[in-house]
Amino acid sequence: MAVLTCTLCGNQYPSDRLQTVCPEDGRPLRVDLDLGPGSMLKEALRDREPTMWRYREALPSCDPISLGEGFTPLHHAPRLGSRWYVKDEGVNPTASFKARGMSAAVSMAKHLGATKLAVPSAGNAGGALAAYAAKAGLEAHVFMPADTPRACIVEAMTHGADVRLIDGLINDCAAEIGKLKDAEGWFDMSTLKEPYRAEGKKTMGYELAEQMDWRLPDVVIYPTGGGTGLVGMEKAFDEMERMDWIGPERPRMVAVQAVGCAPIVTAFEKGERFADLFPNAHTAASGLRVPRAVGDFIMLDFIRATHGTALTVTDEEMIAAAREIARTTGIFAAPEGGATLAAARRLQSQGWLKEDDVVVLFNTGSGVKYLEALSA
Amino acid sequence: MAVLTCTLCGNQYPSDRLQTVCPEDGRPLRVDLDLGPGSMLKEALRDREPTMWRYREALPSCDPISLGEGFTPLHHAPRLGSRWYVKDEGVNPTASFKARGMSAAVSMAKHLGATKLAVPSAGNAGGALAAYAAKAGLEAHVFMPADTPRACIVEAMTHGADVRLIDGLINDCAAEIGKLKDAEGWFDMSTLKEPYRAEGKKTMGYELAEQMDWRLPDVVIYPTGGGTGLVGMEKAFDEMERMDWIGPERPRMVAVQAVGCAPIVTAFEKGERFADLFPNAHTAASGLRVPRAVGDFIMLDFIRATHGTALTVTDEEMIAAAREIARTTGIFAAPEGGATLAAARRLQSQGWLKEDDVVVLFNTGSGVKYLEALSA
Repeated sequence: MAVLTCTLCGNQYPSDRLQTVCPEDGRPLRVDLDLGPGSMLKEALRDREPTMWRYREALPSCDPISLGEGFTPLHHAPRLGSRWYVKDEGVNPTASFKARGMSAAVSMAKHLGATKLAVPSAGNAGGALAAYAAKAGLEAHVFMPADTPRACIVEAMTHGADVRLIDGLINDCAAEIGKLKDAEGWFDMSTLKEPYRAEGKKTMGYELAEQMDWRLPDVVIYPTGGGTGLVGMEKAFDEMERMDWIGPERPRMVAVQAVGCAPIVTAFEKGERFADLFPNAHTAASGLRVPRAVGDFIMLDFIRATHGTALTVTDEEMIAAAREIARTTGIFAAPEGGATLAAARRLQSQGWLKEDDVVVLFNTGSGVKYLEALSA
Repeated sequence: MAVLTCTLCGNQYPSDRLQTVCPEDGRPLRVDLDLGPGSMLKEALRDREPTMWRYREALPSCDPISLGEGFTPLHHAPRLGSRWYVKDEGVNPTASFKARGMSAAVSMAKHLGATKLAVPSAGNAGGALAAYAAKAGLEAHVFMPADTPRACIVEAMTHGADVRLIDGLINDCAAEIGKLKDAEGWFDMSTLKEPYRAEGKKTMGYELAEQMDWRLPDVVIYPTGGGTGLVGMEKAFDEMERMDWIGPERPRMVAVQAVGCAPIVTAFEKGERFADLFPNAHTAASGLRVPRAVGDFIMLDFIRATHGTALTVTDEEMIAAAREIARTTGIFAAPEGGATLAAARRLQSQGWLKEDDVVVLFNTGSGVKYLEALSA
């Protein structure tokens, strides 16, 4: 059975019951699996379903609540850059990468006996929780800022979730849940405040390796809100190395944030390991409007260890770049996806990206959820 | 090389150049492939990509313009019916089944030298053409009714298409294209007015068989606008039988239309083979707002040959049923998908559907494109 280890202090906790964060320091728990050579065979993947559950030996041991999430296409995008690729997470169920985390986390929450799930969401996570909870037959309580893209609100409501719109940001939504959850008997599904959303997200790292024939790219550019994708990919790369699927090389990991909400970039530039709350957070990329991330030090350590970097782009740059992706690749990119292209262009002009670098841009969701931003 | 055969008069035309409809009678051309036992091996599918192009021997011979369309999940939905399934086309690129047809048709249009593509669309087809044309580097001209769901309009514009909103219905849009296309040099991508959209759509039939372990369901319930999906599935079943993949059994095919736009149901009930233009067409399911279908007789013959049926549901029924799908399966169904559940409930109460029938409902697109209808 897996052990849960605090990512900061290293304390360990059992995985046979619902767990949240480390009671000592409030930091995320990591699911430590006993993986080594032979735990899972690359060859076995040939007969597996085209979803993230094809990596089942590395995922929670439970009945999957699945809507077909993961194993999304990795498109070569030669009109953007000769060796550039876009990982299109917009074709997931619920139209974003949030499906991966919620599939894993709802599966485990149900397995361990939770019946009422709550989440604060900047948009896509709320829709995803609502969908997976509906399939699981569990209650979903979704708290979103009142100005969240309408598609996410309608989606969550249509799936039967209890949707509450808050006059504030995602951390204000989290605070509301904090006030209510004990009295209501809700289990808090906030990103990195339970251990399994990161387990779902890590499958993006497994897929990158499988889809690139077990050679990781030189650079991964990732739009960073809560950062669970970065945290998950670090773990995936380490697990694959332990299973002898890949060597010790890692891509240079790049975190992109919005000028209007850049806590991780600010900490990176200051050389700090923990990020301060970013004041007056605002950006049209709702998934990037996350002023504080509990996994800050995990991301910052990972970026530095891989000789990566962190940078901001403006809303105008990310929306223009989302349009460029849509016009040149056929992928209807979210503003968050556009942010990765805008960042890549900057890094290219600075010489940080080399001509022959194999670069993967993560389009974390579909532009169809962002009509307000994209039709402005 | 495939031969193109008129579905009504049987005249044949070469497939080495761009073709539209039969010049004799204006009816659709069918792509006749020389398929027999051994043309394509079921066993080969094991190593194929999880897209519709896994059936490549049965698809157009050209470089595929692909965004990862097809091989969508077939979800068991026991909370709807014990042996009921939902085929979720909403997780395709561009969030609908239209991706399949446009992937095949844009691939062939480019292969045969077209550079400017035009389509009249009730919504999803326009977004899909815009996306695939963008990937192919071709021009897209999309004509949609002015009250098309906004998501489809923004999607097509974001992909760089020339979008024109018409005060009328899809047949009025088609008439506009008819007036302009020769002078502008546009190739008309209207459904069943070129031969390859149906070839893409037929892969839904191949997938049904593969995903059900080569036993077709007893009943398929399909929301019917232009009807290319029905036309395509009939062809897929015949091709698979010729290859010895399946036997002569066929599902009873059910066409569902809206009360406000039901040309096929009307013709079915009158015992006619051709459908009249349906007057004053209106329904919130934009994909069903197709008052005249050039493939009417192909659908009607197929429904009758399989002892199927055709029926209407109201907009209120389909939207309530879409919500029921969303709340019980986690699939964010379009109103068209809801229509299939509403029809199934009716057929169940009438005893037409038997307790032990294996039933497949086609959710042809994602509800995320229908915020106006679903939040009303």
